[in-house]
Amino acid sequence: MDKSPAWLKKTLDYTFSDERLLTRALTHRSAGGDNNERLEFLGDSVLQLVVSELVYAERPGASEGRLSRLRSSLVKDATLSQIASELGIGDHLILGSGERKSGGERRASILADTLEAIFGAVYLDAGLDAGLEAARQLIHAAYGERIRDLPEGEDLRDPKSRLQEYLQGRGQAVPEYAMEKVSGKAHQQSFEVSCGIAESELKTRGTGSTRRDAEQNAALAMLEQIEVQA
Amino acid sequence: MDKSPAWLKKTLDYTFSDERLLTRALTHRSAGGDNNERLEFLGDSVLQLVVSELVYAERPGASEGRLSRLRSSLVKDATLSQIASELGIGDHLILGSGERKSGGERRASILADTLEAIFGAVYLDAGLDAGLEAARQLIHAAYGERIRDLPEGEDLRDPKSRLQEYLQGRGQAVPEYAMEKVSGKAHQQSFEVSCGIAESELKTRGTGSTRRDAEQNAALAMLEQIEVQA
Repeated sequence: MDKSPAWLKKTLDYTFSDERLLTRALTHRSAGGDNNERLEFLGDSVLQLVVSELVYAERPGASEGRLSRLRSSLVKDATLSQIASELGIGDHLILGSGERKSGGERRASILADTLEAIFGAVYLDAGLDAGLEAARQLIHAAYGERIRDLPEGEDLRDPKSRLQEYLQGRGQAVPEYAMEKVSGKAHQQSFEVSCGIAESELKTRGTGSTRRDAEQNAALAMLEQIEVQA
Repeated sequence: MDKSPAWLKKTLDYTFSDERLLTRALTHRSAGGDNNERLEFLGDSVLQLVVSELVYAERPGASEGRLSRLRSSLVKDATLSQIASELGIGDHLILGSGERKSGGERRASILADTLEAIFGAVYLDAGLDAGLEAARQLIHAAYGERIRDLPEGEDLRDPKSRLQEYLQGRGQAVPEYAMEKVSGKAHQQSFEVSCGIAESELKTRGTGSTRRDAEQNAALAMLEQIEVQA
């Protein structure tokens, strides 16, 4: 007996009227013609809208750019495949034998695509009038904490940009980065950079395997210092 | 008196409960803080979903790649700005004085963004349960022929019929097919046929092992040419 409907009921509290839609959503193209690619196409749009309306409502003061970054962080493959893993989608995938042998059920892109296909299948299964609400509930359940505890738009931007904007917004000079130390052999070097703010005489340090990483870490340390003082 | 609500009622048969949403949707960022950028962010996702479900339903045999291309052609800025022009959105835009002076009400990107913002505003105005259906109806009305013309299950119908219907729908003459070349021995012949449209002076060619196949291929090439130009 196919255990997929019971699994979906248990993990996401949804029962399909037409179980063939669920089967199709779980079928990777390696397993044949009636696969999940079209449902993934649809589900991607359903997910985009549900996440868009969510960040729109939850971040009333955020600019369009910020909303976009926040949405991207929620719908990117890395997030989707993580959620799919947590839900145990891998155990229910229908894969061709080659894909199965090469461990396709653990491949991030396959997991992410399948989750989107499930969203699309639920949207269709519940019908024209109820589809969006059914998908909305399912998506909210699947995301769980990730949307109950939305990352601040701030956290999504790199520390150097955030620090610079913070200082400019207060009419202060840009921070100064200086290379303090380079260690290790070529191709395995480690950099240590300092970040200084003239006005406040604050200074932090950051290390990294590239100069840029070291600067970002120094900027992050500075943001944390400023926050402590604020 | 603000004529925008009456205009929207007349052109797209929608009446806002909260007219401030319509005002915001019509307000370009050049006119100030309470502008349409956030609504555009939301409306873009609403439009994507409505068009996705439409092409999904109308092209049951199409691959995901084909659905994506079809959707792109419907939601691209060029299409949106054209629709916005036809609806006369330019007359209702709220622009900053600089943007007004430089003819912003005719700028394609502003028109396209504003149309998306209107979709977002309707989605919000009609509320969580009814929003998608209201936006769906509005989008279908705004697109009009562009989506009524989507041939049902295009893949299943032959190119010659599609081309003929396309031309007749635009009041143009039927295409002319002419045998250009026959090569090979009997029973292994290859035919080359040209397809010409008098009005546009376009001409394409197709080959096949029967005259009929060659004509179908020439018609398909013509459809693709027309699509590229559209």
